[in-house]
Amino acid sequence: MIHVAIYNEYIHERESECVAAVYPQGIHAVIADFLRSDEIDVKCFTLDTVNEITDEELKTTDVMIWWGHKRHDAVPDEVAARVRNAVQNGMGIIFLHSAHHSKPFKFLMGTCCHLTWREDGDMERVWTVRPAHPIAQGIGRYFELPHDETYGEPFGIPEPDEVVFIGWYEGGEVFRSGCTFHRDYGKIFYFQPGHETFPIYYDKNVQTVIRNAVYWAKPAFRLPDLTCPHVKKPGEE
Amino acid sequence: MIHVAIYNEYIHERESECVAAVYPQGIHAVIADFLRSDEIDVKCFTLDTVNEITDEELKTTDVMIWWGHKRHDAVPDEVAARVRNAVQNGMGIIFLHSAHHSKPFKFLMGTCCHLTWREDGDMERVWTVRPAHPIAQGIGRYFELPHDETYGEPFGIPEPDEVVFIGWYEGGEVFRSGCTFHRDYGKIFYFQPGHETFPIYYDKNVQTVIRNAVYWAKPAFRLPDLTCPHVKKPGEE
Amino acid sequence: MIHVAIYNEYIHERESECVAAVYPQGIHAVIADFLRSDEIDVKCFTLDTVNEITDEELKTTDVMIWWGHKRHDAVPDEVAARVRNAVQNGMGIIFLHSAHHSKPFKFLMGTCCHLTWREDGDMERVWTVRPAHPIAQGIGRYFELPHDETYGEPFGIPEPDEVVFIGWYEGGEVFRSGCTFHRDYGKIFYFQPGHETFPIYYDKNVQTVIRNAVYWAKPAFRLPDLTCPHVKKPGEE
Amino acid sequence: MIHVAIYNEYIHERESECVAAVYPQGIHAVIADFLRSDEIDVKCFTLDTVNEITDEELKTTDVMIWWGHKRHDAVPDEVAARVRNAVQNGMGIIFLHSAHHSKPFKFLMGTCCHLTWREDGDMERVWTVRPAHPIAQGIGRYFELPHDETYGEPFGIPEPDEVVFIGWYEGGEVFRSGCTFHRDYGKIFYFQPGHETFPIYYDKNVQTVIRNAVYWAKPAFRLPDLTCPHVKKPGEE
Repeated sequence: MIHVAIYNEYIHERESECVAAVYPQGIHAVIADFLRSDEIDVKCFTLDTVNEITDEELKTTDVMIWWGHKRHDAVPDEVAARVRNAVQNGMGIIFLHSAHHSKPFKFLMGTCCHLTWREDGDMERVWTVRPAHPIAQGIGRYFELPHDETYGEPFGIPEPDEVVFIGWYEGGEVFRSGCTFHRDYGKIFYFQPGHETFPIYYDKNVQTVIRNAVYWAKPAFRLPDLTCPHVKKPGEE
Repeated sequence: MIHVAIYNEYIHERESECVAAVYPQGIHAVIADFLRSDEIDVKCFTLDTVNEITDEELKTTDVMIWWGHKRHDAVPDEVAARVRNAVQNGMGIIFLHSAHHSKPFKFLMGTCCHLTWREDGDMERVWTVRPAHPIAQGIGRYFELPHDETYGEPFGIPEPDEVVFIGWYEGGEVFRSGCTFHRDYGKIFYFQPGHETFPIYYDKNVQTVIRNAVYWAKPAFRLPDLTCPHVKKPGEE
Repeated sequence: MIHVAIYNEYIHERESECVAAVYPQGIHAVIADFLRSDEIDVKCFTLDTVNEITDEELKTTDVMIWWGHKRHDAVPDEVAARVRNAVQNGMGIIFLHSAHHSKPFKFLMGTCCHLTWREDGDMERVWTVRPAHPIAQGIGRYFELPHDETYGEPFGIPEPDEVVFIGWYEGGEVFRSGCTFHRDYGKIFYFQPGHETFPIYYDKNVQTVIRNAVYWAKPAFRLPDLTCPHVKKPGEE
Repeated sequence: MIHVAIYNEYIHERESECVAAVYPQGIHAVIADFLRSDEIDVKCFTLDTVNEITDEELKTTDVMIWWGHKRHDAVPDEVAARVRNAVQNGMGIIFLHSAHHSKPFKFLMGTCCHLTWREDGDMERVWTVRPAHPIAQGIGRYFELPHDETYGEPFGIPEPDEVVFIGWYEGGEVFRSGCTFHRDYGKIFYFQPGHETFPIYYDKNVQTVIRNAVYWAKPAFRLPDLTCPHVKKPGEE
């Protein structure tokens, strides 16, 4: 069983009628719905319950999914640090869309994580750059989202380990829409689609990518906690 | 003085009137013209003189620029191997456009170097992904080419050391248009713009990028030739 | 079932008594023995049968293992090119020890693949640099080989995707002993231990690493053959 | 003129006689001495003056050098964040030895930055892995330090952009002793030699490496501050 925990700040859906129309139970509910299966169970957290993301919880979480936008600042530094530490100790994590500016993502990247953006509801075409990557399985040469928020380069991230997808936008931008990183024992996937005003997370291709990413990011092995040990000479131990 | 050698197969310009109209003296002549300066001298080779690309020549070349398309196969394997070896020993090299399928590029990459392509004369917008890179200096957020051949992903290259530019095409594709690689002592830059039927190499931004790439790729130091030596224990030498 | 093909040039074992004493049936026989299982079947090729490594054979091979030393030159270019192409199309490959100078490895790297070497039978200690990597599972902080040929830096390879192991030698050298690369759809692992005069391939840790690498390198998906297609505009297809 | 700022916590030298014997004016004084030249000026900060590392100061700093060990925790988070931000905006930075656990390094890496360590005064041999790298110029195949603290793998860093040096220790460890990273506009070099009880920073090779790294890390261009702008469609701007 893969234990997934979703964090969604869950503000837009309660404050904006047009978002509520798309995600009446919250973005997390839609993601949880398509992920839940015989092999995956899902637990959800929102900004209201963000402090329940404890070290205990994280220890039993295989993969976390993070969606935030308006209140990145309201996530306590200690919670973000716990999430970063859990990733370093092997938990996988998937950052969606505007989570590029979330604290855990910035803590893990070490860069500004800025990008340029436009809200014109452009059509986005997401191109597969690495067809052999496990995250791209079941995705063809590209897939289209009729409307998405436009994200543009430069995207302030370290050179990714792998660029799996690049997005093309009707209005003229490009964006590295699917990128992987490793931090100590943990795997990280950033995936750009997902504006709250569009039904992105109902899209079959988006769902396939996120599900693939869960399988890819789950820790394959339980390793000892990271430490900085004073050691003896090899052989004297 | 930076010693640049340009290889252009120089066939399209002599066989096709519409190409000759754009590049009457050949693509190499236009590139040589804008590169030549107090700091850069330029020598040109074509398919007719490809065998003059000897080890001797390459030893005094700092940066090579390669353009080919129709007759990659007519470049002898030995010449391509010499070029590869020169790069390994520190010569910089810039591959332009359809040189993605040239023998030296394929020898240096180890991948298939395939891509998808369309010849509809799409407008291309080239986005700067790494603004701090020396090759991007003087280029703004993006520049536009009114017409270019469309190249699309997946591009069959190893994950580049740095993706400096990504191209956006009017008709819907994206492409990693500016990529760097290192092979032993040598630096490599692949730059996608450049179809023979369009005046791409007269474009000021394209010229800036190629000139920047020459400065970036030139070897900073002369190092001993690469060998695989049988050594003594450190200290016994 | 994972289909493994081993190539071992099989010359040392037939020409040298001291090698024959360690590997009476050839290095390939020992590797085949410890790999064969309910999940892995193994086929072997030697220099005598190298031309039997056909495209047909490679199409049904999941992972190839390559050992060569004295007669890299005797492997026909066409065979090496077939192996390279198979890797590009998704076959995994593991290069052992002196295969750093084999044609397929050099074709895939694009670098000189040189290193420095000493044959003093030094003790080697192989350190795990990425403990979370699937190839390192079951290996502790390090393992020791009482005697191995010493390989030293600089190792003429592109910056690896991942450095999994680094070797330490009694006499004073270091070496990136376990490195991964990707070329198109295919995964590559280079593993340094393995001199023919020492019983390296009987070592349990070495066997664990090679077995892990087989599982890691096997293609996860069957993808269409690589091509360079002329395409229509997205949407017109 | 390259403006260098050195931070040294400057505690060991004032608390320990044996350290004071090696660095009577502090480690920073020795580094400042060998760096100062017609092309480089140097300013120093210690833990006592760490709050003077303001945004103003950092704006006029080209390259920072960081040495800390006992009181990483005493560097305020805001100061560390300023340093991180300055790197993102283009300032180069060199982290020495035990600065692997400093706040700015951890903020920039996103990993745990742990390592294993021994204080037996082992001889260290530092091997050049990338001889063509500007930081390795003037360094031969290797250099030796008669006594250094031993650092061992695994080193908890992201896969470096370039591994320039690997250290070998008499007692049996290896360590990626010279590594480069990029974070947004800024260049980072980590260099392992440097224990406070040994005269490491008087060593000519160590000085050459640090001086080379200053030239390598200095920002080549002044770029606009990083932002996350809401943009108009290309062409409408």
